[in-house]
Amino acid sequence: MFTKNCIVAAPVQVGRASLVRSRGRVRAVVINSGNANCATGMPGIRSCKAVCLRLARLLNVRASEVFPSSTGIIGVPLPTDKIVSSLHPLLANAEASVGNLRRFADAILTTDTRPKVASVPLRSGNAAITGIAKGSGMIHPQLATMLVYILTDVAATPAQLRSALREACDESFNVISVDGDTSTNDTVLLLASGEGRVPILSVRKEFRAALGEVCRSLAEQIVKDGEGVQHVIRLHVEEARNRSEALQVARAIAHSLLVKTAWAGADPNWGRILAAAGRSGIRLDPAKVSVRIGDQLVCKGSMARKFDEQKAHAHLSLPECQVRIRLGRGRSSIEFLTTDLTSEYVRINADYST
Amino acid sequence: MFTKNCIVAAPVQVGRASLVRSRGRVRAVVINSGNANCATGMPGIRSCKAVCLRLARLLNVRASEVFPSSTGIIGVPLPTDKIVSSLHPLLANAEASVGNLRRFADAILTTDTRPKVASVPLRSGNAAITGIAKGSGMIHPQLATMLVYILTDVAATPAQLRSALREACDESFNVISVDGDTSTNDTVLLLASGEGRVPILSVRKEFRAALGEVCRSLAEQIVKDGEGVQHVIRLHVEEARNRSEALQVARAIAHSLLVKTAWAGADPNWGRILAAAGRSGIRLDPAKVSVRIGDQLVCKGSMARKFDEQKAHAHLSLPECQVRIRLGRGRSSIEFLTTDLTSEYVRINADYST
Repeated sequence: MFTKNCIVAAPVQVGRASLVRSRGRVRAVVINSGNANCATGMPGIRSCKAVCLRLARLLNVRASEVFPSSTGIIGVPLPTDKIVSSLHPLLANAEASVGNLRRFADAILTTDTRPKVASVPLRSGNAAITGIAKGSGMIHPQLATMLVYILTDVAATPAQLRSALREACDESFNVISVDGDTSTNDTVLLLASGEGRVPILSVRKEFRAALGEVCRSLAEQIVKDGEGVQHVIRLHVEEARNRSEALQVARAIAHSLLVKTAWAGADPNWGRILAAAGRSGIRLDPAKVSVRIGDQLVCKGSMARKFDEQKAHAHLSLPECQVRIRLGRGRSSIEFLTTDLTSEYVRINADYST
Repeated sequence: MFTKNCIVAAPVQVGRASLVRSRGRVRAVVINSGNANCATGMPGIRSCKAVCLRLARLLNVRASEVFPSSTGIIGVPLPTDKIVSSLHPLLANAEASVGNLRRFADAILTTDTRPKVASVPLRSGNAAITGIAKGSGMIHPQLATMLVYILTDVAATPAQLRSALREACDESFNVISVDGDTSTNDTVLLLASGEGRVPILSVRKEFRAALGEVCRSLAEQIVKDGEGVQHVIRLHVEEARNRSEALQVARAIAHSLLVKTAWAGADPNWGRILAAAGRSGIRLDPAKVSVRIGDQLVCKGSMARKFDEQKAHAHLSLPECQVRIRLGRGRSSIEFLTTDLTSEYVRINADYST
């Protein structure tokens, strides 16, 4: 799964083409952080291919079987030589160990403060699903998120994996947002080795459930480690006509600067939530809209309800809090995970490239 | 012209109905700041009508000829008695003077730091156009903006005024954004007294030009006084297929937290501008997209160009700077006025209601 941004980084272009050529077979992934290799034109494509080719030769596999990713600043040439010269020493230390998994999770971070790993064993057999992610800013994945690598030793075809992954992403990476900016490099890769000799069809239901759990865990870890985040908000949009309508309202609220800054102050200013929903593009009937903060109804029929402001403030002061908006239009509901907007986010991003 | 938000404040509902009943005749406007009288239900409507009725009696005009506005916090009952008891003393001091105009401009402010007035005399006769506005946050007008009152002594019908105002708003209040949040109370009112005995048809072209000038000036004053704003950005979107496409790209860029925070740091990080345009929903061809900061081409064909970073930084450090993005899709261009996002904006809005 890749970014839906029209501006697509070189590694995403190269990786996508390689997956077509190799029919979804991947033997190695090569990832750098600090440079996105995006908006670098043909030289960027050539650099990316050079890195993949070099690694392919060292591993004695095809170049199309090496999958590349990059994350970092946009528009700066990839330091190809620096990466290529590191490949040999990296391979010298390669082995399947928990320590290496951890080092991998650390190496791909940028403004992240914590590595992000999730693992769920499959009870039905000798197999598991393990995911590693990075992402902290430019987080508003559209059918994919920053860099996520999910590994399993189940035996499965690329088509089987693709369908399972699409479903899992819809309920995880596609319902989170830190800052509403969709990256040019978003990538979610699900790789199956078959080493466990467990055919995916024999554990189908369990595999999907475990994959969903890994994806949701990584998505939550990304939001919790969002740039400058103090509070994570579980935003429930209920009684929408359909999922896309619920998402539209969730995004209007989650991307409102006034809502996000109120959350930074743990301020139960539900009027801003209502105003953001009102401009979402959905034809809301104000008489049917209600808002809850924590377990308190604060607004019903678009009107203030008496509520305990101190209690609402205390709830919004928690590291993780609940906000619910009911639209009164249908039966579709979603849970959207988002964050407050703090001065720290501004500080981090006001001086990143220079 | 009124807000396009589905959640509409009581004064906008009452004012709109009054304009229909009076066929566009207004004898007085009554405005309060500090309370938006929004999400206040039927009691809010009744409060608003009570204020209008009381003023109408004092002036011996019809209630439908009194136009109400409110601005401030959402969801708190309007302090009707406080407003009603102030009407008599206000009228006692009423007279057409520059001092009173200035006091009016001051009285309607909320988080604004400066009053906003613009006046253009019509050379063709004994008439002028004067506008007064307020607005600093929740600024992303959709066919209207916060509270704007434009007065002229030209003689004109409501229909003539409406058509002139629609045109002027499109080139002023509809191409600005501070924070992307559309208010529930946005109102632009154009009132003509006919006192100057200058029929609008005799000064048609000049009237439209002067009205455009007043609206653009007020729109600029609103953006420059945006909450926490350090830099105003004149964002030119060029070579779009049509105006709506140009607007869509302008809004995606103007509302990107990463772009706005880069601008706060005067950081020539054009990659973020490109990434925001890429997720705008327009099918951009990266090969045709270029970006300019000040007079320097910094990105062409979605690729970095060598440029003087210090010079670009110096340009973005100006109180007002120019950013241009060319899409290579057509001949439509717009100028969109927007702002950076600073820690001060977060501070102002993290603790407004409590």
